[in-house]
Amino acid sequence: MSYQPTPADKFSFGLWTVGWQGRDPFGDAARPALDPVEAVNRLAELGAYGVSFHDDDLIPFGSSQSEREGHVKRFRQALDATGLKVPAATTNLFTHPVFKDGAFTANDRDIRRYALRKTMRNIDLAVELGATTYVAWGGREGAESGGAKDVRAALDRFKEAFDLLGEYVTSQGYDLRFAIEPKPNEPRGDILLPTVGHALAFIERLERPELFGVNPEVGHEQMAGLNFPHGIAQALWAGKLYHIDLNGQSGIKYDMDLRFGAGDLRAAFWLVDLLESAGYDGPKVFDFKPPRTEDFDGVWASAAGCMRNYLILKERAAAFRADPQVQEALRAARLDQLAAPTLNPGETAADLLADRSAFEDFDPDAAAARGMAFEALDQLAMDHLLGARG
Amino acid sequence: MSYQPTPADKFSFGLWTVGWQGRDPFGDAARPALDPVEAVNRLAELGAYGVSFHDDDLIPFGSSQSEREGHVKRFRQALDATGLKVPAATTNLFTHPVFKDGAFTANDRDIRRYALRKTMRNIDLAVELGATTYVAWGGREGAESGGAKDVRAALDRFKEAFDLLGEYVTSQGYDLRFAIEPKPNEPRGDILLPTVGHALAFIERLERPELFGVNPEVGHEQMAGLNFPHGIAQALWAGKLYHIDLNGQSGIKYDMDLRFGAGDLRAAFWLVDLLESAGYDGPKVFDFKPPRTEDFDGVWASAAGCMRNYLILKERAAAFRADPQVQEALRAARLDQLAAPTLNPGETAADLLADRSAFEDFDPDAAAARGMAFEALDQLAMDHLLGARG
Amino acid sequence: MSYQPTPADKFSFGLWTVGWQGRDPFGDAARPALDPVEAVNRLAELGAYGVSFHDDDLIPFGSSQSEREGHVKRFRQALDATGLKVPAATTNLFTHPVFKDGAFTANDRDIRRYALRKTMRNIDLAVELGATTYVAWGGREGAESGGAKDVRAALDRFKEAFDLLGEYVTSQGYDLRFAIEPKPNEPRGDILLPTVGHALAFIERLERPELFGVNPEVGHEQMAGLNFPHGIAQALWAGKLYHIDLNGQSGIKYDMDLRFGAGDLRAAFWLVDLLESAGYDGPKVFDFKPPRTEDFDGVWASAAGCMRNYLILKERAAAFRADPQVQEALRAARLDQLAAPTLNPGETAADLLADRSAFEDFDPDAAAARGMAFEALDQLAMDHLLGARG
Amino acid sequence: MSYQPTPADKFSFGLWTVGWQGRDPFGDAARPALDPVEAVNRLAELGAYGVSFHDDDLIPFGSSQSEREGHVKRFRQALDATGLKVPAATTNLFTHPVFKDGAFTANDRDIRRYALRKTMRNIDLAVELGATTYVAWGGREGAESGGAKDVRAALDRFKEAFDLLGEYVTSQGYDLRFAIEPKPNEPRGDILLPTVGHALAFIERLERPELFGVNPEVGHEQMAGLNFPHGIAQALWAGKLYHIDLNGQSGIKYDMDLRFGAGDLRAAFWLVDLLESAGYDGPKVFDFKPPRTEDFDGVWASAAGCMRNYLILKERAAAFRADPQVQEALRAARLDQLAAPTLNPGETAADLLADRSAFEDFDPDAAAARGMAFEALDQLAMDHLLGARG
Repeated sequence: MSYQPTPADKFSFGLWTVGWQGRDPFGDAARPALDPVEAVNRLAELGAYGVSFHDDDLIPFGSSQSEREGHVKRFRQALDATGLKVPAATTNLFTHPVFKDGAFTANDRDIRRYALRKTMRNIDLAVELGATTYVAWGGREGAESGGAKDVRAALDRFKEAFDLLGEYVTSQGYDLRFAIEPKPNEPRGDILLPTVGHALAFIERLERPELFGVNPEVGHEQMAGLNFPHGIAQALWAGKLYHIDLNGQSGIKYDMDLRFGAGDLRAAFWLVDLLESAGYDGPKVFDFKPPRTEDFDGVWASAAGCMRNYLILKERAAAFRADPQVQEALRAARLDQLAAPTLNPGETAADLLADRSAFEDFDPDAAAARGMAFEALDQLAMDHLLGARG
Repeated sequence: MSYQPTPADKFSFGLWTVGWQGRDPFGDAARPALDPVEAVNRLAELGAYGVSFHDDDLIPFGSSQSEREGHVKRFRQALDATGLKVPAATTNLFTHPVFKDGAFTANDRDIRRYALRKTMRNIDLAVELGATTYVAWGGREGAESGGAKDVRAALDRFKEAFDLLGEYVTSQGYDLRFAIEPKPNEPRGDILLPTVGHALAFIERLERPELFGVNPEVGHEQMAGLNFPHGIAQALWAGKLYHIDLNGQSGIKYDMDLRFGAGDLRAAFWLVDLLESAGYDGPKVFDFKPPRTEDFDGVWASAAGCMRNYLILKERAAAFRADPQVQEALRAARLDQLAAPTLNPGETAADLLADRSAFEDFDPDAAAARGMAFEALDQLAMDHLLGARG
Repeated sequence: MSYQPTPADKFSFGLWTVGWQGRDPFGDAARPALDPVEAVNRLAELGAYGVSFHDDDLIPFGSSQSEREGHVKRFRQALDATGLKVPAATTNLFTHPVFKDGAFTANDRDIRRYALRKTMRNIDLAVELGATTYVAWGGREGAESGGAKDVRAALDRFKEAFDLLGEYVTSQGYDLRFAIEPKPNEPRGDILLPTVGHALAFIERLERPELFGVNPEVGHEQMAGLNFPHGIAQALWAGKLYHIDLNGQSGIKYDMDLRFGAGDLRAAFWLVDLLESAGYDGPKVFDFKPPRTEDFDGVWASAAGCMRNYLILKERAAAFRADPQVQEALRAARLDQLAAPTLNPGETAADLLADRSAFEDFDPDAAAARGMAFEALDQLAMDHLLGARG
Repeated sequence: MSYQPTPADKFSFGLWTVGWQGRDPFGDAARPALDPVEAVNRLAELGAYGVSFHDDDLIPFGSSQSEREGHVKRFRQALDATGLKVPAATTNLFTHPVFKDGAFTANDRDIRRYALRKTMRNIDLAVELGATTYVAWGGREGAESGGAKDVRAALDRFKEAFDLLGEYVTSQGYDLRFAIEPKPNEPRGDILLPTVGHALAFIERLERPELFGVNPEVGHEQMAGLNFPHGIAQALWAGKLYHIDLNGQSGIKYDMDLRFGAGDLRAAFWLVDLLESAGYDGPKVFDFKPPRTEDFDGVWASAAGCMRNYLILKERAAAFRADPQVQEALRAARLDQLAAPTLNPGETAADLLADRSAFEDFDPDAAAARGMAFEALDQLAMDHLLGARG
């Protein structure tokens, strides 16, 4: 099988990924700036479907109106020439020191208002360029010390901001939904809405919850030691997987942003299995950072690797699900019983209480003696992942 | 000030805490069993308000009906004699190997039905003993391998179980709410509803969400590296802090269940500050395990330490909030601005767009130059915590 | 290629692995006890080379002398019948509550002396059964609180114990070396000698350092977030890899003891690559726990999976190293330069200072512009691991 | 008691700490550059004893020789004027992209030679300014992927570098020792010599081990979840605590570099207790980063807080040790027995075997029943830490 991506795979990249210059907490830039037009051209050649951007990726912070128009025009021409789409866009509310204490939840009210305006301005551009999802990562919404932030008040401000943005896209008639991206920490000591769960819960308190979903990122959940496919499953279950950021992370440490497949490979396999099984049809966005050791050859090798690894894993997951021995192993592990309701059709609490087989006549020791056959199933998965089924 | 607890402090303990015998993954019991009546008597002497229990703490698994009645009678007499309350109770759905793959989300349907019945039976007893909160920790709801659990199906089963229990308490007319207790892992490799956020989000999809809140436990959130006071703040913000389990944990590792105050002392300070500021008036439940090194003298010293530490931190938090210099520092850090809405009364998106001061005339560099004065504030908090002011 | 193990692969298992009954901090035994003779027979059938044991695995704690002899005789007969070897043995210094505060570093002096005697007794048996390595895991040597252990004094006692044991095996003329097994925590809050590095350093202060090396365990180092192959490389570099325990772990959490290959699969690949490249010829010991969900069929499936995964990874690593494109990629990444000394033969500090090309005429910006080509190399490794080359 | 520091406290700061401009992985500088002379003046006013520096802190990378001399002259004048000492210095081998794959272990040989020369040059300056310790943090010595670094070869290169530097300071007659600073990760995915233990072990393989010790940093060990005071105790036990970096960290996440006392306060208490008990008389160096939210007022508040917190903890630790009830509690916990040798004077293995009281007549169950009284002791420590002893 070929692992050559095509636009039908809906792979997308942020400008800030291949364009990352390698500045880190202990080091200066290791690569020159990358022209967004060059990024579009190279991603198209590699087989990508789309590209997304922060406002400041495309239009340097502080550009004049005419500079702005020039940047947008060149970018649009590159999109038109290559056929690359802009499925999503987002706002940079973290690089400039004005956001050092946050944007929508900054203690300073004028900064909060400025952040809203900066966002509204880029929403207009995003819609103009065809985006239907607007990503919101509140990377600076948080604190390093306990007294610095009244979290309940901050959540009020956070809600106020998203309610205003929901009003804005509604009043403008935009076909745009928001995808909130959680992260537990870095660059703040603790970030608000630290996990997929916290973001999902927060959304339910917004005025227009239907406009808001989540944008989980592999590494962000793994920075909290959480099982990423489990989190995605809960987001899908809630009908809220509006966008996804794929990359790699080696456990609980700083945000590594490795290429997809690097880091926890087995979690990547189960993730692809889940996305494909669930029929997720949004863009698969690689939000990674080509390591600082690489020159541009390495940047493109890394970008190509993201897509290749997804396609390999997709092939392996499909073979796993199609294997009759796997299907038998799933039954041996009683996945079919898990799919069946616990209660009989129409059964009430009173009915259940009346069923002696459920309790009085149930033999817990006998039930406990049944093996779950999970290890045999997991070894089959390992064999498929490794291409070692004979 | 005295740090002697009284029932007015609403401190409560689980029978399984002081009664823990010290069995761990590598060791046998280090203490003899503790009679629940003895636990009640000693806790009352120490100044506790309440006691809670799993069904199997009070009535050994497999007891006959008459044995059951005997256990309940003795326990009730001890409660009556001491005045100790039972604010909450819960079900043991994890010790017996029948629950090795879960209870409400076990792959085996008959085990799920048995788990529901076991729970309903203890709900009756809980209500009989005066409990108004029923805690649900799904410690075995999870998996060690990716194929073993279809998480979306498992969430369907989890919802089905809680909907049935909600129907049951409603139909019985019980004055009882449920508090779901999240945990990221241990004893399962990954547990469903791993954090406060995931549980809050899940609750919104239940049929009777008003009956369900969360029971966060200090160590459980800290096992995911999360800021516990932040999680509690979000639960309070959502109106869902129905119960709380206090203990100590030293970072991301196995579940330590240290006494309250041990582990992350600064987080404990901010937690008490938050609970007291927010007027949380439920029981403060110590869900800890006296270390296996201790005999019963150590058990009671440890239980007393939990309460003492809460009272010391309560005193310090109150002094912090009352200190005029702190109040000035909070203003210097613009906590007052955070408390104010970002928008003017009635302000719309269009109004905000028309406000040139918010964007066109806003000077981000000037705003960025303002210091937030958080370090001075945090040092004041440190001084109060350490009793080093003045 | 076949992945069927044979004794030539030198795969070994602890009796306590396949015999684990599934007791965990929250649950009772889920499997019956396994007769050591049955374990020997089944492991031999699966293709294992060896078996190791704690004293109490083979001879229940508290057995009489005649019971002891009976247990040993049956075990030896099974070894003889199957050809299984005993490459290593160890002492259980953690299950009985007498060791609740440690063994060689217990605060109680009489317990320290008892622990030494228990160890010496089992050393005699280990040698009698042909073991040449004696593993020492100090799982209870540690503390949960800061005042409970004077760590410098405890290290004195630790050294005293190992010096005594070194004297003992020397005086007895035993052909036996010790392998110290580090672990960061669990069952103690913090364990002494928490990582491979700490154990290597400690060994240098013993009286007979040549008798002491390390026994690293995959999951133990990963519980501290450390790169396991890096730690093994340092142990090999120091000439101290005397034994190795292979299993799987999913990041920083409780000790999972998954089968080898589960958990961090990419680290497992690089580990096998390193062990095979370095010519490690000791036993490869699987120190895992078949999950509690499994019955005995699952136990044996899990044990077989450990060996199968090692053999798959060995095949993949060999193919990786033999691939001409990989060899070219390694040169592109300048691994050949890393293998070359930094200094010229005989070059002194003064010579280096006199070499203007090293500093005065060196162009750091030009050197910085060279890409390291690591991403292309790593993708080749991924392709080999996944069997996706060609 | 006053918590006003004086030079007798030997508190020291790196120029890069108060001078940190707040660039982080997601943000630009938030503070202007700080003149080293201003840093010296302000630190002296605050009561500090010393200041240390990287070459590039004092002399911007790429300065001409005459610029260099000018920078050094101004700095020396400020030192003379204030009386501030330079107890230690170090080399910046991480900011310039030439070091993107390391310095002493870079794959590129010319970069390794350049790194040695850059270090030798700054050693000369360090000695000229009176430093007696030279810190070596190999922050870029590591890798993000398994094939990119042959760790055994890299350790050969690391040893070669330190042996050359040892030769250099010996041949020059410098009174200078090296302190190797471990860190597990960030900015590399995994860093060589990740913990205090790994560094201690490595030193034993150097040609002049007596010239090399460790420089542990609070946050670095805590990023691996390790108990910092335990690591310091092992370094002291080995005679290798040559320098120490004090700061704060909230668990396993990115390198936070909080002010000392923030983060894990209880570990800070036990650390100060250990340093003071052990008579550590080197400089206490605060290697922290004033949060990016702060302006210069916040920078100095944060620096002052580091020293204040040390002094508060020192006072509390002294009171703890002096308290007769604590001394009794330590005896109840048998710390006195831990201080006593396990063996009798001159006792051999044979003697121990002959002592029936050690084994044959020892009653493990009776010994197991003794409580260790650790919880009461730990609560006394908590009371002293919190200033809550009545």
